[in-house]
Amino acid sequence: MTIETEHTVEPLDELKDALQEGNKQQLETLCNTLSPSETARAVLRLDSEDQTQLLTLLEPKDAAEVITTIPEEEAAHFIEELPTDQAAPIIEELRSNHQADLLNYLTESKAEQILESLSTENASEIKQLMTYPEDTAGSLMITEYLAYPEHFNVDDVLADLRQQGETYADYAIQYAYVISKAGKLMGVLRLRDLLLSVKTSPIEKLMISNPLCLKDHAHLNELQDFFNQYAFLGVPVVSDDNVLVGIVSRFAVEEAVKQKANKIFLKVSGIVGGEEYRSMSLFSRSSRRLSWLSVNIVLNIVAASVIAFYQDTLEKAITLAVFLPIISDMSGCSGNQAVAVSMRELSLGLVRPKELWRVFSKEAAIGIVNGIVLGCLLGGVALLWKGNPYLGLVVGGALATNTLLAVCLGGSIPLVLRRLKVDPALASGPLLTTITDMCGFFFVLSFATIVLSKISG
Amino acid sequence: MTIETEHTVEPLDELKDALQEGNKQQLETLCNTLSPSETARAVLRLDSEDQTQLLTLLEPKDAAEVITTIPEEEAAHFIEELPTDQAAPIIEELRSNHQADLLNYLTESKAEQILESLSTENASEIKQLMTYPEDTAGSLMITEYLAYPEHFNVDDVLADLRQQGETYADYAIQYAYVISKAGKLMGVLRLRDLLLSVKTSPIEKLMISNPLCLKDHAHLNELQDFFNQYAFLGVPVVSDDNVLVGIVSRFAVEEAVKQKANKIFLKVSGIVGGEEYRSMSLFSRSSRRLSWLSVNIVLNIVAASVIAFYQDTLEKAITLAVFLPIISDMSGCSGNQAVAVSMRELSLGLVRPKELWRVFSKEAAIGIVNGIVLGCLLGGVALLWKGNPYLGLVVGGALATNTLLAVCLGGSIPLVLRRLKVDPALASGPLLTTITDMCGFFFVLSFATIVLSKISG
Repeated sequence: MTIETEHTVEPLDELKDALQEGNKQQLETLCNTLSPSETARAVLRLDSEDQTQLLTLLEPKDAAEVITTIPEEEAAHFIEELPTDQAAPIIEELRSNHQADLLNYLTESKAEQILESLSTENASEIKQLMTYPEDTAGSLMITEYLAYPEHFNVDDVLADLRQQGETYADYAIQYAYVISKAGKLMGVLRLRDLLLSVKTSPIEKLMISNPLCLKDHAHLNELQDFFNQYAFLGVPVVSDDNVLVGIVSRFAVEEAVKQKANKIFLKVSGIVGGEEYRSMSLFSRSSRRLSWLSVNIVLNIVAASVIAFYQDTLEKAITLAVFLPIISDMSGCSGNQAVAVSMRELSLGLVRPKELWRVFSKEAAIGIVNGIVLGCLLGGVALLWKGNPYLGLVVGGALATNTLLAVCLGGSIPLVLRRLKVDPALASGPLLTTITDMCGFFFVLSFATIVLSKISG
Repeated sequence: MTIETEHTVEPLDELKDALQEGNKQQLETLCNTLSPSETARAVLRLDSEDQTQLLTLLEPKDAAEVITTIPEEEAAHFIEELPTDQAAPIIEELRSNHQADLLNYLTESKAEQILESLSTENASEIKQLMTYPEDTAGSLMITEYLAYPEHFNVDDVLADLRQQGETYADYAIQYAYVISKAGKLMGVLRLRDLLLSVKTSPIEKLMISNPLCLKDHAHLNELQDFFNQYAFLGVPVVSDDNVLVGIVSRFAVEEAVKQKANKIFLKVSGIVGGEEYRSMSLFSRSSRRLSWLSVNIVLNIVAASVIAFYQDTLEKAITLAVFLPIISDMSGCSGNQAVAVSMRELSLGLVRPKELWRVFSKEAAIGIVNGIVLGCLLGGVALLWKGNPYLGLVVGGALATNTLLAVCLGGSIPLVLRRLKVDPALASGPLLTTITDMCGFFFVLSFATIVLSKISG
């Protein structure tokens, strides 16, 4: 049976109908047949009351599945609306790393209430996970894993596997870990090796000793490097004193890398302070966008003040006003290309933040070539339009110079920001365009001032 | 042992030394100790001759590992430089899907030469893989998998596993597949189930019949939905007549999704026609960037022609020249935020291309709020600067109107382009800014014309 996802009735309407009738059975069937994106799309479009009712009617396990289809920030809103005694069992059904992520999005009081209703062990585990900074092994790891004491033999392990089969089915297991009495990581067992072993062998003999592992504070970049280097599905995570604290799966790392790429895309486009979905309130969407736009408008006014400074020149050669936005926009485009290449090379590790000179010289070469080509193009247009070679020289020369400046800056800014520990995705664009705008206006208008008598009127 | 990657000597220098000495042993050690990103960084910075020598000196298996650390487009350059009899054994060591991807980047003649030196079976397999369009199950699948005939029992499978252990070690296996005589997919075997079964059981009884599978032409979106819905590590891929043709792993899908996100980021930034690395030649980097810039400069000139049309107005109220670039840039920013949210919602499946009205109305609300706020800000600046309320009204009114237009357009354009099967990442930005620039200039200058007597001089 191949997967087909076509519906004649809109899932949203079906969902609304089932909610209106309070038909629990139908809700369950719906949630099991819809694809994750269909579920998310429908659930996010319900009004707040219906969302609460849906999570209330469903069994905690099903409700948890609905929750995982939805972006975490939005899911946190749902949980916030639920009474604690209904929210807690749903949280309990989630994977440990999702639990921590979700609670981090909740208001502090709500998170505390929920933690109090969970078992002490579970709560302290989640609290521990919540302390790890974003994009570290600790924040990405799950605490559901198989660990056996050193003295076990193959049969002991198989017996446990059989007995706990139900619980373990969710673990997507490939490895089990061998730990000392103090909980220190001693070795790793490949489950497939159990297939081919004598049942009485002690697992100590079967295990791979001194397995590769990562510290809980290891950064996402290290994790990415690790999984690129080794074809493992997971890596054990240990505390500084080598106690096994969790497992980071390859999936979790891939997912985190993907999310990071998306965040970069959003930030570069001016969506800052988290993701935006159109299901969010107008106020939060509008105010978040404005926070970024208002910084930009100030930068824009600063840049344009150069024009005000040269108002006399502009008044005498009004044609230049046509070229000012072109030069500012084109330099921004050229610079942004260089920013993108630097961001990409940084994320792939193909360039290191300190290699400024390498980037600068590579970009300068492009800047000279592209500056000359674009300068000739725009200068040619100016010449043809007004038949004035000086105008062509001013406009073309300014674009050429500014293109060179823009690519050199665009290539370098992400490296410099990275060294200053400022997020390059967020700051590179506004910083770049402000400088290139100012310089672009300055080049056009100062070049024009020099030959003003030849181009005025 | 935790992973540490610090070197006092630069890997690039070590690599160069080893190459100069022709020290094969040292090269092997280096390639095995460097992390993938260190390897890639060093190898990409070697000159072309050294790169060829490196791949020649290494054993094909090691050379293949070096190749996998490097972006495919660059790796293809390396292979292109090698004599066919050296390139073919390296290609042979790669996974089937990488083989096909890499050959697709080679010149046709080189690819054919390499295919001819491979075994007929291997070559026809790769040729088949190369026919699948990008981002389909066929192009992402690997053809290395375990398949057993229906009549096998558990012991037959275990015997094969033991015998072929060496070959299978690379497969990262969790499942085996059961096929009919005609090669049709009959069932899937979980290897861990073999652990707990009687050795004489026929696998037909143990297998999960009618397993979930996808067609070879299924699109990446479907694959993503599949793996979101099911916690599997892989999915079997079948042809239209249900013959098992390969396996798509969860990794391959995650990797493809990640690459897609990166491509979007690059395209939005004007890096088109594939990735750009600074190790590429100046000519190809410069010409690719120019191909996009030259379209943009034409669009910019078209937009700026609106200013030329209103030259008389501008001459009389030269202050407006300061505000033209601000309004054009700010509208571009607002519009790009809306573009980003639409692209993100499209990729998450939270909005469908036909839901134009939903996006339009949601954006219109933001456009009104943000337009008023930004309009008041800029209008206020104009008023304070020149003490002229009419100037404030013209400038603020134009920015407000154009912000509303920009977000409505920005939100809608990606949906419209998706429906027209045009890549929204590539075309949304230039299309948006051209329209918002033209309209921005038009609003300022036409509003100004109405009250020209009040703001001129």
